[in-house]
Amino acid sequence: MEGQLFSSKPSSSSQSIVGKLQNVTVRYDGQCEEWPHLNMMENYTIVVDPIVGAIIYGRSIWGAIRGLETFSQLITYSNQNEFLINTIKIKDFPRFKHRGLLIDSSRHFLPIKTIFKTLDSMEMNKLNVLHWHIVDDESFPFESETFPELSRKGSYDPQYHVYRDEDVNAILEYARQRAIRVVVEFDSPGHTWSWGLGQPGLLTPCYGPNGQPNGIFGPIDPTKPNNFKFIRNLFTEIASRFKDQYIHLGGDEVSFDCWATNPSIREFMEQHQYGNDYTRLESYYVQKLVNIVKQLNRSYVVWQEVFDHNVTLKSDTVVHVWIGNDTSSTWSTELSKVTEAGYQALLSSPWYLDLISYGPDWRKYYESEPYSFDGTDEQKRLILGGEAAVWAEYINGANMISRTFPRVNAVAERLWSSQRLAKANRAVGRFRTQACRMIKLGIRIQPIDGPGWCECDYALTD
Amino acid sequence: MEGQLFSSKPSSSSQSIVGKLQNVTVRYDGQCEEWPHLNMMENYTIVVDPIVGAIIYGRSIWGAIRGLETFSQLITYSNQNEFLINTIKIKDFPRFKHRGLLIDSSRHFLPIKTIFKTLDSMEMNKLNVLHWHIVDDESFPFESETFPELSRKGSYDPQYHVYRDEDVNAILEYARQRAIRVVVEFDSPGHTWSWGLGQPGLLTPCYGPNGQPNGIFGPIDPTKPNNFKFIRNLFTEIASRFKDQYIHLGGDEVSFDCWATNPSIREFMEQHQYGNDYTRLESYYVQKLVNIVKQLNRSYVVWQEVFDHNVTLKSDTVVHVWIGNDTSSTWSTELSKVTEAGYQALLSSPWYLDLISYGPDWRKYYESEPYSFDGTDEQKRLILGGEAAVWAEYINGANMISRTFPRVNAVAERLWSSQRLAKANRAVGRFRTQACRMIKLGIRIQPIDGPGWCECDYALTD
Repeated sequence: MEGQLFSSKPSSSSQSIVGKLQNVTVRYDGQCEEWPHLNMMENYTIVVDPIVGAIIYGRSIWGAIRGLETFSQLITYSNQNEFLINTIKIKDFPRFKHRGLLIDSSRHFLPIKTIFKTLDSMEMNKLNVLHWHIVDDESFPFESETFPELSRKGSYDPQYHVYRDEDVNAILEYARQRAIRVVVEFDSPGHTWSWGLGQPGLLTPCYGPNGQPNGIFGPIDPTKPNNFKFIRNLFTEIASRFKDQYIHLGGDEVSFDCWATNPSIREFMEQHQYGNDYTRLESYYVQKLVNIVKQLNRSYVVWQEVFDHNVTLKSDTVVHVWIGNDTSSTWSTELSKVTEAGYQALLSSPWYLDLISYGPDWRKYYESEPYSFDGTDEQKRLILGGEAAVWAEYINGANMISRTFPRVNAVAERLWSSQRLAKANRAVGRFRTQACRMIKLGIRIQPIDGPGWCECDYALTD
Repeated sequence: MEGQLFSSKPSSSSQSIVGKLQNVTVRYDGQCEEWPHLNMMENYTIVVDPIVGAIIYGRSIWGAIRGLETFSQLITYSNQNEFLINTIKIKDFPRFKHRGLLIDSSRHFLPIKTIFKTLDSMEMNKLNVLHWHIVDDESFPFESETFPELSRKGSYDPQYHVYRDEDVNAILEYARQRAIRVVVEFDSPGHTWSWGLGQPGLLTPCYGPNGQPNGIFGPIDPTKPNNFKFIRNLFTEIASRFKDQYIHLGGDEVSFDCWATNPSIREFMEQHQYGNDYTRLESYYVQKLVNIVKQLNRSYVVWQEVFDHNVTLKSDTVVHVWIGNDTSSTWSTELSKVTEAGYQALLSSPWYLDLISYGPDWRKYYESEPYSFDGTDEQKRLILGGEAAVWAEYINGANMISRTFPRVNAVAERLWSSQRLAKANRAVGRFRTQACRMIKLGIRIQPIDGPGWCECDYALTD
């Protein structure tokens, strides 16, 4: 069985029982790596045989974990109080190595238990990266040891709506046990309003028509050397507290309006002969940021604007393509450009799950193919995969799981399975089975594709 | 305080404590009525006075229940471990007497606990009618004593996905204690595919181009006298098991395609000189149905097509307007026609909450006004109110509460409060307070209007 993310139920009518499964052996190659990483081997083999028993063999510990998940999905419960599994041989591996879900704990605080449940649900669908967009304009729930004022002043509530050291560690550990990387994002220089509350002087004061500061603040002020000291210290802490090789540096949607009103910014622009091109000021900031992170021996992911605005990037940089939700020509052009420049790329544009609409929108997610762009084979190899995004303007702990799943399962299969599996109509049966499996395990998820039922629907209680 | 459904928090800074509240008295006029009804009096008065204490006075037991809810919302918790309430005098009453929520337990089974939670949430927002669309094409979860085969064969699963006698009674009682009517809907002659599974002969066999039955079934076959015996017996049971004076008889979206293929239907049409006008056959069925229900001493609500197709209706019939979700001219024209003919009307068109879209769609719900149609004062008086509808094609126990609330609160206030409260921008602060109040009481609801937080968001765990 190759290329199908979810196993189908074995048909009990066509079954003849040939033996009892006595042994289940789990093996994997190599050392037991401590943390999952971009290049981890997730390949696995499963053999279920009436004589040998079951063998789950991973090309690494991470592959063994993927194999265990599939193995559990092969088992069904019969009406005769027995658990059944078919004789089978499976060789399975992912098409893309980065299969992520972006969560946003700034627009609304996401309870730690909700993040755990998200990781459980991701693991069941072989998603392997939790992209944790942890802070933004609206709130700064990350409790920094170096700069405790950031969350004390910038969180919604520093008592209950923050992620403490032990919370972060628990989330990293919970993810690790499920072979899921946690790539944290501290987005700057825009999207930082909440940072300014606990770090006076960080943000750019905007000026009104009367030539006086109007009390509004814009992006981080890149003209002040002190701000880069702060950035260096903050990212030093981030690099020590998050284990992944990659840190997401953001860099999207920097608004230039405020910068343009500020006299000292304008003076700096003149000194540097930037003219009126504020993308050059943005790049000045991001260049310093990526240099700092490089010195910390970390690699980085950046939103596509950073690439578009010609920042000099490390060769292992990942450019995250997000613009053009419903316009595949927009994102496919961008993928061409990014990979032509030799950078690795991640795709999110077609998978903004927060942009809800009526009906089974997972079908269009499913039929969005990351390789749909003009490029050489070499360029295609630079596509690491993609991420579904659940921005949290309208998401909290009450609807995070039920709204994200099972819709995101479509993205998970697109990124794991063969490109030949292309039609949602042929996937819907598998997806229904998988949705019911999740409900059976107590995960509260919305219906997948119109009227119907799962055997445990009646127990979906609030 | 008149016309605001939700109370705002008293500002603790402007407060001076003048005494302790020692007594809370609840009184109401008249006999204690057993079941809530269309004309129940929900008016109440609250006086909170440092000398007299608190008096909650209802014009009936139902008004006292409304007053108790408001009273509970007046109380806030201070930072000094005290509960606070302002000195206040409130005279409050609803603008419309029918303020409903339609739930659909056929497209997906809704767990009984989810229905309880729905009733809790309705009560907090002074909604007073649960319109229970209990069966439809997809499943028949109502366990009938007279026709047990209907749910045995027509439910998704007769063991766990049915509403037994004790379940129905528990739901009626739970609603009664919250001053909420339960108006059940058994929609016919269309929307009855699942009925046919347990009642052979009920539905019309459709014929293929070869002049033979093609195995597909259409609406109830109105040409068979036996079917009206069945209908009489079924509705006799319904009238005995549901307590409200009104039963919703459906009558929407009857498809004529199948009827037109069936030879005995066509023969019947000829005999009755209906020509090719199948609305006359539909009306023939509905006329017999309403006559049966009239003989049971029940009143009825019907979807607008029944009125549009000229069925002779009892004078106390309620016509339920649902067509034209985004086109107010469609529903306002219909409201004019229905009330001009002297019938009472309910509005649902602008309030199909299952038709989700990105962002705070409650704002457009809020700004939809049932009196926005051309008609005399007398016609306006025939508007009983309205209902929000949560059709369950994409709803199950996992997302019923979080998706319905707090969006439906906008409909609740529209139907309760003064018409002068017209702008969503002026309501949003109240709505945020109310949403947080619901979360504090453990009701898992999605965010109301973009980024923000409630003090108990961190406890919204799955």
